[in-house]
Amino acid sequence: MSANPSSPPRLFSFVGGADGPWRVESVQAVVGESLPGVAALTVSATAQAERQPAGAGWTLRGITSHERYVERSERLALSTHQAALGRPGATCAALIPIRKNAAWWSLSQDERRDIFEAQSEHIRIGLDYLPAVARRLHHCRDLGTPEPFDFLTWFEYAPGDAAAFEELVRRLRGSPEWAYVDREVDIRLVRA
Amino acid sequence: MSANPSSPPRLFSFVGGADGPWRVESVQAVVGESLPGVAALTVSATAQAERQPAGAGWTLRGITSHERYVERSERLALSTHQAALGRPGATCAALIPIRKNAAWWSLSQDERRDIFEAQSEHIRIGLDYLPAVARRLHHCRDLGTPEPFDFLTWFEYAPGDAAAFEELVRRLRGSPEWAYVDREVDIRLVRA
Repeated sequence: MSANPSSPPRLFSFVGGADGPWRVESVQAVVGESLPGVAALTVSATAQAERQPAGAGWTLRGITSHERYVERSERLALSTHQAALGRPGATCAALIPIRKNAAWWSLSQDERRDIFEAQSEHIRIGLDYLPAVARRLHHCRDLGTPEPFDFLTWFEYAPGDAAAFEELVRRLRGSPEWAYVDREVDIRLVRA
Repeated sequence: MSANPSSPPRLFSFVGGADGPWRVESVQAVVGESLPGVAALTVSATAQAERQPAGAGWTLRGITSHERYVERSERLALSTHQAALGRPGATCAALIPIRKNAAWWSLSQDERRDIFEAQSEHIRIGLDYLPAVARRLHHCRDLGTPEPFDFLTWFEYAPGDAAAFEELVRRLRGSPEWAYVDREVDIRLVRA
């Protein structure tokens, strides 16, 4: 009703199907059920009603939002080092949808923050891969529609940074925070 | 897709119109634009597609979610004292939709928490009115549809606690947190 039309889009859709600007290299279940294999992916800022792709495809939706755990000093460090999406050389991408379990969501804010950063160094680990890995986080849990994941994270990096990206996801998956992840799919892509 | 059918509903609609189980006593703008006056309100756990009420009515939607600021010790205090909605004697209600400004949403988590509790004592003030005032908070900002408010808070209390409720809203509106509220409507109701 009173949304500002000049605001940048916050709601994004990730449509897996036969065609799209990103070619899918692999779809792998890390924890829990996988997603159907697709040939390509389209990322778009969506209007509310999203078309379902033809065939065996799928659509995941998520919304960017304010930060839930990042503190002021951390934001300063992040904003100093992070790169934007869409760099010409960043021809590799990953879409990593994640769901966290009920135990995570029943924790209080300070308990979640403690696991997220004090125990898991989620922000500090991410800083080690800036500016090589650009990232955008999308939230799905409060969209008001039944969504299969809680978060969709989109990453872009150059082929020469692929080994660094593998290290980043390996470190995060080994952290205490990941004990609360009950579904994770890792989709790797290259620009078509 | 994988929503648990046994989970309690999280998405609620507040439909203002000609009829409904709550009779509207007043609709007042506190800050910014008001809402059209209506005769009655219906609160319901909604499916995704929400009917628009006939006539000059309106529908507000919001979703319950995990806590954003409450810490473990505070949650313990809240859960020890709070009452459930739907008490037979709690025949008074208030629906207070609020929107916060861009400055609020651009703050980091620790800055928002500092304003919310260290400066404004939002949780501590609320505790003073438990169990008299029952409350349910709904989030609108990340629904993925343009919504006119960021939060909808629903309160229920007995007629004998009406003065206490006025004091509660007065204290919150006087707090530093409220400097970030750029739209607020106060809708008072009685059970029909």
